[in-house]
Amino acid sequence: MDKPEKPSHDQIRRFKDYRWDETDILAYKEEGSAPFRAITRQTLFRDPALRAELRYFEVSPGGYSTLERHEHMHAVLILRGRGEVLIGGEVRKIDTNDLVSIAPWTWHQFRANADAPLGFLCMVNVERDKPVQPSEEERKALEANPKVAEFLKND
Amino acid sequence: MDKPEKPSHDQIRRFKDYRWDETDILAYKEEGSAPFRAITRQTLFRDPALRAELRYFEVSPGGYSTLERHEHMHAVLILRGRGEVLIGGEVRKIDTNDLVSIAPWTWHQFRANADAPLGFLCMVNVERDKPVQPSEEERKALEANPKVAEFLKND
Repeated sequence: MDKPEKPSHDQIRRFKDYRWDETDILAYKEEGSAPFRAITRQTLFRDPALRAELRYFEVSPGGYSTLERHEHMHAVLILRGRGEVLIGGEVRKIDTNDLVSIAPWTWHQFRANADAPLGFLCMVNVERDKPVQPSEEERKALEANPKVAEFLKND
Repeated sequence: MDKPEKPSHDQIRRFKDYRWDETDILAYKEEGSAPFRAITRQTLFRDPALRAELRYFEVSPGGYSTLERHEHMHAVLILRGRGEVLIGGEVRKIDTNDLVSIAPWTWHQFRANADAPLGFLCMVNVERDKPVQPSEEERKALEANPKVAEFLKND
């Protein structure tokens, strides 16, 4: 019990310009698999000893994540910049260090402002379900709210 | 499945001066239960839907966390300021946004510099064991390294 296995990376990974040592910048999702724009992903912590993982997503100015929902919950801390988030039927402003809770089965999408990137930490369970995107009907229902329609208009 | 339970707090909790809305500032530990100095705790995310939780600890200038170890792993992101961390037999400098991995059963202690606070996020499994503190013998073994002895001298 006293002799842990050697970790797969150094115990300290340095930060510079929103990149971390020994941490790959990955595509947000497979290209063409879902609508999104100008967003990258870094996995900060994923370890067999942890039941959750911590990812860093960065949305460039004008970019956005996929509009989707799923059974698993998102716990988000905005690390950089500002933007807006759609949660269920509401559009809310978000700023650096704000906390965002996305409850199970809630439609959500993150958008950076036109003049600033939006970088956020997202904690999720390692074991989780796949996101689903809205049907045409579900999207229309969301767009019945003019603020949501305005938010989604560049998809 | 479409109707989540109402969350216990708003979906967005605002940040101001390293405090978050609807989030209590707590004692780091029960006073007198273990050696520590000038450190507070806020639980940012703890939810039945999540297998891990995210806490924010803030160490005032000159303060420190308890020297301890445990089976569970710590995944840490420095959110504010700078300081030093003891991990196993090594003392390392840490700065804002650096990532720190504390492997199971590794002795560790966080210290703020004398001139700056040290605030850090720490992700841990919800189900985890209790920390233990070093015996006199174990502490002596750590202090055999002069850098570690220097780091620990104000305990």
